[in-house]
Amino acid sequence: MMLGMDLRISFITLAVADLSRSLAFYADVLELPASGIVGTEFHDDISGADGTIVFLTPEGCPTIGLYERHNLARDAAVAEDSRSRTEFSLGIALPSREAVDALLAKVAQSGGTVTPSCHDRPWGVYSGYFTDPDGHLWEAVWSHSDTTNPAAANH
Amino acid sequence: MMLGMDLRISFITLAVADLSRSLAFYADVLELPASGIVGTEFHDDISGADGTIVFLTPEGCPTIGLYERHNLARDAAVAEDSRSRTEFSLGIALPSREAVDALLAKVAQSGGTVTPSCHDRPWGVYSGYFTDPDGHLWEAVWSHSDTTNPAAANH
Repeated sequence: MMLGMDLRISFITLAVADLSRSLAFYADVLELPASGIVGTEFHDDISGADGTIVFLTPEGCPTIGLYERHNLARDAAVAEDSRSRTEFSLGIALPSREAVDALLAKVAQSGGTVTPSCHDRPWGVYSGYFTDPDGHLWEAVWSHSDTTNPAAANH
Repeated sequence: MMLGMDLRISFITLAVADLSRSLAFYADVLELPASGIVGTEFHDDISGADGTIVFLTPEGCPTIGLYERHNLARDAAVAEDSRSRTEFSLGIALPSREAVDALLAKVAQSGGTVTPSCHDRPWGVYSGYFTDPDGHLWEAVWSHSDTTNPAAANH
């Protein structure tokens, strides 16, 4: 069976413990455009999930939803697991080494957590990681080889 | 301190246990364009991470990297935590109710896990969730209100 559809990732939902805390981090520290806390009028009687959410709309795509962990678990009909930092990471391609350093410096100065060792990696990038208030990993990346191609910023 | 930069998410790294198993799921079941297993020649002596990775390049952005969990932990310099399904979800906006059903049916027929209760949610979407071989959540979504605006597919 072929799907015959080109799938597109249009949004990323991040499970968070405290919407206000996460909104402050993303809007104030990372300076992402944010909706504020919206959707408070919705409750899904089937799943038990509330609709309360924060939308972040970075340049390009996708949209990010900050959604309380218990609501994500209910919405998805899975058990609420304990926290893990090593499920995923979101990568931000930046135009220079200095931009990577500036972003990590701002996160650190704002009380965020920058993990050790921003450095040149053998696959051609200079990068460092930080975590959001829930431990979600972000990687700030400058690609040595091509600063215009986001895909090249991976490896 | 202002960053003065518009941050863009250019890639998503998913931690996986078995690259071949995940490659089969994403390339064969979801039919995403995939690089195969690449970067095997790289090892980072500073972090201890290998470069071995699979790149998926869905329509639009961002690129997805499938990366072994122990490598993500080393690359990010955090401890390797145990698995959790409730850290995040990736949303796929689809053009119709039938497209949501078709995607979930294919995942189920391919041995994947569809979580209970694809249904109409009170925030104006018809959606259902499935998990990849590592338990990462994906949501297949059709928005009642606007099928052309990915942001509207959230709520």
